[in-house]
Amino acid sequence: MNFAVIYKIVLRILTIITIAFVVSMGVAIIYSESLTPFLFSTLISVTLLLIFLYLNKGKEISDIGRRETYLTVSLAWFLISVVGALPFLFSGHFLSVTDALFESVSGFTTTGSSILTDIEALPKSILFWRSLTHWIGGIGIIVLVIIIMPSLKIGNYSLFSAESSLQDKLVPRIKSVVKRLLLIYVGLTTFEAVLLILGGMDLFDSVCHSFGTIATGGFSTKNDSIAGYSPYIQYVVTLFMILAGTNFGIHYFIVKRNFGKIKYNEELKIYLSIIFSVSILITFILYFDTSIGLETAFRESLFQVTSIVTCTGFATTDYLIWPTVAWVIIFLLMFVGGSTGSTAGGIKVARHIVAFKNIKKIFFNLMHPRTVYTITLNRKRLTDNNNSSILAFVLWYILLFIIGSVFLVLTGLDYETSISAIATAMGGIGPGIGKVGPVSNFAHITSVAKLIIIFFMILGRLELYAVLILFTPSFWKKV
Amino acid sequence: MNFAVIYKIVLRILTIITIAFVVSMGVAIIYSESLTPFLFSTLISVTLLLIFLYLNKGKEISDIGRRETYLTVSLAWFLISVVGALPFLFSGHFLSVTDALFESVSGFTTTGSSILTDIEALPKSILFWRSLTHWIGGIGIIVLVIIIMPSLKIGNYSLFSAESSLQDKLVPRIKSVVKRLLLIYVGLTTFEAVLLILGGMDLFDSVCHSFGTIATGGFSTKNDSIAGYSPYIQYVVTLFMILAGTNFGIHYFIVKRNFGKIKYNEELKIYLSIIFSVSILITFILYFDTSIGLETAFRESLFQVTSIVTCTGFATTDYLIWPTVAWVIIFLLMFVGGSTGSTAGGIKVARHIVAFKNIKKIFFNLMHPRTVYTITLNRKRLTDNNNSSILAFVLWYILLFIIGSVFLVLTGLDYETSISAIATAMGGIGPGIGKVGPVSNFAHITSVAKLIIIFFMILGRLELYAVLILFTPSFWKKV
Repeated sequence: MNFAVIYKIVLRILTIITIAFVVSMGVAIIYSESLTPFLFSTLISVTLLLIFLYLNKGKEISDIGRRETYLTVSLAWFLISVVGALPFLFSGHFLSVTDALFESVSGFTTTGSSILTDIEALPKSILFWRSLTHWIGGIGIIVLVIIIMPSLKIGNYSLFSAESSLQDKLVPRIKSVVKRLLLIYVGLTTFEAVLLILGGMDLFDSVCHSFGTIATGGFSTKNDSIAGYSPYIQYVVTLFMILAGTNFGIHYFIVKRNFGKIKYNEELKIYLSIIFSVSILITFILYFDTSIGLETAFRESLFQVTSIVTCTGFATTDYLIWPTVAWVIIFLLMFVGGSTGSTAGGIKVARHIVAFKNIKKIFFNLMHPRTVYTITLNRKRLTDNNNSSILAFVLWYILLFIIGSVFLVLTGLDYETSISAIATAMGGIGPGIGKVGPVSNFAHITSVAKLIIIFFMILGRLELYAVLILFTPSFWKKV
Repeated sequence: MNFAVIYKIVLRILTIITIAFVVSMGVAIIYSESLTPFLFSTLISVTLLLIFLYLNKGKEISDIGRRETYLTVSLAWFLISVVGALPFLFSGHFLSVTDALFESVSGFTTTGSSILTDIEALPKSILFWRSLTHWIGGIGIIVLVIIIMPSLKIGNYSLFSAESSLQDKLVPRIKSVVKRLLLIYVGLTTFEAVLLILGGMDLFDSVCHSFGTIATGGFSTKNDSIAGYSPYIQYVVTLFMILAGTNFGIHYFIVKRNFGKIKYNEELKIYLSIIFSVSILITFILYFDTSIGLETAFRESLFQVTSIVTCTGFATTDYLIWPTVAWVIIFLLMFVGGSTGSTAGGIKVARHIVAFKNIKKIFFNLMHPRTVYTITLNRKRLTDNNNSSILAFVLWYILLFIIGSVFLVLTGLDYETSISAIATAMGGIGPGIGKVGPVSNFAHITSVAKLIIIFFMILGRLELYAVLILFTPSFWKKV
């Protein structure tokens, strides 16, 4: 194991988080709130920084191997979550270490499940930190899946990138791509915040909600999430959830005005079709089956569907009071996931497209066994290896979903809550069904169940393999 | 569509079922029971026979196409179930047409789920007919997956057959293989019945239970299934459940004394390992967590595990009163399925082996992306096409399981009962968990839910595709 690399990543993460602590301290100063949580947290993160600087002294980085990459990726999310839990812990608003860690992991994995029962009781600086964890986690995942994974030829990530130039190994090139992605990320966040302010939301709430939207996180600063805001604001948030769940490669090409690349993007078409067709379906169900008016039905349906598909988790209503068929659809949508190369979690639309084409292929071959059926994605032919590995991913995902649900059932949680808690954790969504619906929270869950959910949030966020490989014996074998 | 073929199959099925009616009538005569159910049933089946003979007159069978095969396979199970429901209906012991059909489909698909609340109240001739439906369904599936599917190169069935000679297209060869398989089937049934009689079970119960075992069906003639019998009888039934869940190709080679073919059979090893390792695990759980003695714990554990893995569904105890972790394991075993080429249902061990090897391959490639990892089954290399089609099958299976569960939840059934009812129906097992456990039955379920379960029993029995293809538009397109 090349520890120099790991030290370097740890140092970077500690630097990022220390800066974030200092920024949050600024918010505490503005609102004349207690500085203690961030002072203590900064003290610890700076101490850790100095320790690792000392350990790292004189170490040269040799070639970065796969082993190191996998370990650092998992380590990065774990470390940032643990250090990021400190302000929560020092704030005194969290009842246990598990609760603080749960909130922090939920933040950095852009899940948005919360153990808080009264969000508005928290100091603004802590709420700001809470939303900032989403935003940091969001840009982290974009860099991971668009730059790091494809350049190391891990899994099928090169397949999902909209263009091969995004995976160029040349470091200066990568740096410029990262810079542009960062610009898009900051740009989208700013743009949304401005539109929210124009709609009458105050600066603080606008920034926090924009963090939560662009990272497809879902932490709100309000107890009733987005429900109390005007239809204008709800539509703005919906629009930006859709943009955040889109492959950032697409935004990159829009910025570069290269529309040809977008035209053939199958995933984008299917992603938008799912959101709009399911929204319209649920609009009809709500309109004809309840007393909700047409515009409200459409807005609530579109908002909730978009929130679940993009794995954000904001809410403007409680879908559990909808007719059964409507919330069952919402539950199934938890397995969709947004687009690859976005901040959304879950299985993702591109993988569903491939899985569906395999099913079509089987039926085609049942009738025409001698004809070759080629599976394509975005008009490019898939190799057999890529194809079966995508199928195995979907299978693995469902398998882990079942295993996780069983673990939760064994902790004594009811079936409905268990399966939806794991589905929402793996997808990085936020609310579930049963006792963890959109107007509930995860406070009442046992500590063991919370730790299981924490594991599944990280597992889902890092797209399974980066975490699972750490549990294989061959990973730890000496070369 | 070549109707001559379909007529021919229909004629065969009507002939088989008429003979079976007459045999059951013999049982009714022996026990001096009412002949009405079988007389009426025979009358209808003979009338249908005459109608189809007339329709078929002068029609020549041309080449049998795939279209006809798929349709006849689904039609065969549907038709035999409908006609087979007649004696139940005429017996007056079934409250509705749906109930009679449920019992009949459950019989012919070798599932063994029952809507009866008091089995022992039924006439012996009806109980005999009930067990006979298992036995007919069992031999039907053996012929289907060992002879028909591979010879038509449908799916991966040729892969699962133990030898290519079993798939020879030459008709005289096929006839001799069918004859030998039939001999093995009858031989195993007789052998079990004799061993049961030696253990003190009476002739009638022995024959019925042997029908239920060798077909991995699970209908018993007793309300408490096998629980009231001696340990000797329970071990005998366990042994024959294991034999019935083994690929009949293996029995074929044992009869031919060709042991070399068996030595390399991976599926057999894993199949037996699963049964014994899980049985030992549950033995320990029962021994240390309850007051059950060691021998009883082992016997109950082995019996229940074998019954679920082989998709039989007999019971000697109620696993729902076991410690939670034990019955959760039992629930997960419902997704295992026995061996390919056996009367067992479900996903089947060979497909799990392939899925597991794909997972191993992914982890291997994460560390060594440039090395080719070859996936084999029973020491033979899998083609990419076979590999991805097996993965797609497993995915399809789980997907349909989720869809089925959602449908049942929508009928108002609770989660636990819904998911286990679909799992047990698709796997052709019998009991589930929740309100359809081993000491319960399906009587209390609504008619709509029963019809959904009926559909999933046939879907699972015919390994999904033969049924699903009938729902694709391209199947019905004119050539």
